[in-house]
Amino acid sequence: MTAPAFSEDDRHFMQVALSLSKRGLGNVWPNPSVGCVLVSSDGTIVGRGHTQPGGRPHAERVALDMAGPLARGATAYVTLEPCSHVGKTPPCATGLIEAGVSRVVSALTDPDPRVSGRGHKMLGDAGIQVDVGLYADEARRVNEGFLCKAERSRPFVTLKLASTLDARSATASGESQWITGACAREAGHMLRANHDAILVGAKTVIADDPSLTCRLSGRDHQSPVRVILDRAGDVPFAARLVQTADDVPTWLVTADKNFAELSEKFEKTAVKVISAGCAGDHLDLHDVLRKLADEGLTRVLVESGGNLAAGLIRAGVVDRIIHFVAPSVIGGDGKAMIADLGLNQLADAPHFKRTSVREVGADIAVTYDKITE
Amino acid sequence: MTAPAFSEDDRHFMQVALSLSKRGLGNVWPNPSVGCVLVSSDGTIVGRGHTQPGGRPHAERVALDMAGPLARGATAYVTLEPCSHVGKTPPCATGLIEAGVSRVVSALTDPDPRVSGRGHKMLGDAGIQVDVGLYADEARRVNEGFLCKAERSRPFVTLKLASTLDARSATASGESQWITGACAREAGHMLRANHDAILVGAKTVIADDPSLTCRLSGRDHQSPVRVILDRAGDVPFAARLVQTADDVPTWLVTADKNFAELSEKFEKTAVKVISAGCAGDHLDLHDVLRKLADEGLTRVLVESGGNLAAGLIRAGVVDRIIHFVAPSVIGGDGKAMIADLGLNQLADAPHFKRTSVREVGADIAVTYDKITE
Repeated sequence: MTAPAFSEDDRHFMQVALSLSKRGLGNVWPNPSVGCVLVSSDGTIVGRGHTQPGGRPHAERVALDMAGPLARGATAYVTLEPCSHVGKTPPCATGLIEAGVSRVVSALTDPDPRVSGRGHKMLGDAGIQVDVGLYADEARRVNEGFLCKAERSRPFVTLKLASTLDARSATASGESQWITGACAREAGHMLRANHDAILVGAKTVIADDPSLTCRLSGRDHQSPVRVILDRAGDVPFAARLVQTADDVPTWLVTADKNFAELSEKFEKTAVKVISAGCAGDHLDLHDVLRKLADEGLTRVLVESGGNLAAGLIRAGVVDRIIHFVAPSVIGGDGKAMIADLGLNQLADAPHFKRTSVREVGADIAVTYDKITE
Repeated sequence: MTAPAFSEDDRHFMQVALSLSKRGLGNVWPNPSVGCVLVSSDGTIVGRGHTQPGGRPHAERVALDMAGPLARGATAYVTLEPCSHVGKTPPCATGLIEAGVSRVVSALTDPDPRVSGRGHKMLGDAGIQVDVGLYADEARRVNEGFLCKAERSRPFVTLKLASTLDARSATASGESQWITGACAREAGHMLRANHDAILVGAKTVIADDPSLTCRLSGRDHQSPVRVILDRAGDVPFAARLVQTADDVPTWLVTADKNFAELSEKFEKTAVKVISAGCAGDHLDLHDVLRKLADEGLTRVLVESGGNLAAGLIRAGVVDRIIHFVAPSVIGGDGKAMIADLGLNQLADAPHFKRTSVREVGADIAVTYDKITE
């Protein structure tokens, strides 16, 4: 099979579909966030769609409904293989066939074993021209959460760090508000909006009593699930996250042996208690992430203190670091942004790949991605 | 007096002069690094010059010698007020007058009390049109070392830091080679080339036995003075800096009370011993810098460990931080790039102004400048 040749128009319309696909990030889990553009033979966009909040309707359905009869003979640009399995609704592949599209350009094959190639095959069997692989890397990046869950049975983990230039997240006495400026804090809220969940440790909840909601005007309905790691069951009833669990989901992950007790403790609240195994005197972070994937989470933003950050780095499960750096200095007696790693030699230091650096007000934001072989 | 109006040509030629002026940085101390361009009435550059190694000849002299009789009627663009006092050679103002230039465009008045306005006045009194202030900020920046020494009686202090993204400069066991990559190290050698001196603490000399030379091909003659702060006289005779003091100047700053003993200890070496006062059990860094200014230094690059870095920041004498950040993590048990500052509250954290961020191979370099009121 030779690689399909894509035209300039193909590239343009797939870019539009990719741009649409990003809109769903953070509120379509456990589904992927897909974009779809329907283009008539004269080059007019007749339908556009992206996965809707909660994961349904799918992007293709939204675009087909917009196009109506104009979908006949059109080309569909989709950022992920259309689904082929009957779920709550008929599969998108069937929808595209019934609408009479003549060609489907797809960025990526869906790794979900219920789909994986079947969607493309259904379309081809119906006589539709199917060209796969346009902007596959970009499509992978938009859906890195969904793909990580499918391929590694855990959510994609982004560690958000905010510190002085000497990597201190608080003074010795614990004072941390505000190290970074207003622009960086706003960028932080934007990150919350496009993640499925925020992960914090019980220590942070006890020390700071945060609300961890998205407080961006117009996106305040997009607050992610708040997940607290609380092995020992230390989080108090009065914590803001517990008290507001009716409005914004709050999950508490605890050690297996504390599960029954904590389930009872939080029985009358909206807090969902999840149990995970332990490794020594800590929660087994691999098991925690597996459990979160079982619950459907695809993109998790970690806003923890230095201990959980170090634990996740040691476990090798940090896929991305976004580091907001303020132009100030606290000194070595301040709180380390990442706690002890216990390295024996420099060669063991975890390495990342810097993928972007940008100015954010007086601060900078540097993004590092996990190096994958 | 109204501000002179500068033409497009004026701006262009002053930019050329500024560009020339940078060439002398690091090897003209105690003099300023000046650039001069002579332009004939038809817009042709007839002479160019910058301050020569060791500080002489001055830029104007070099440009006048190149122009010869073509200097008559030309416009001279100078990045600093021409000197007016008779030193080892006749003053540059006299040189410009005798050569018959018709106009002088000068970026900046020299703060040196022996000059300060007199150079410009001499030229004006001779009937030459003198326009001052074009690109004054840029000229100040090139000569921030010379100006700092003139205005604050200390050299301009640049703190070079190299660390992981969590601001560790070494592992707990002291392993630090190499955290940053080859490009960052090359940029570090370039910094050495355009500074008058490198400042390190005795601890660094004892732990790493560095050579602190500029090892850039073509600029290896441009190694700055190596200055060691050694209050107690701990630096061993066998240290590379001591052993190579014949080739590259090595100065040792010690406490007043150890001056006699150390002068004797290093009598048979080329090491120059300088004494400074103490503040508690440390050298008084204000006094150290005053002494270095007395010796003629204008630009000092600090390549120290975390203690001296913290001491200089606490003393408020760090004019610039250049931070090379590697995309790796050592963890909180690694060596802090900046040691304890003993802050009581976050509001006391020293703030800087980020002035640039650039990619340097796999690393980034972020520059922060002192905030001046």
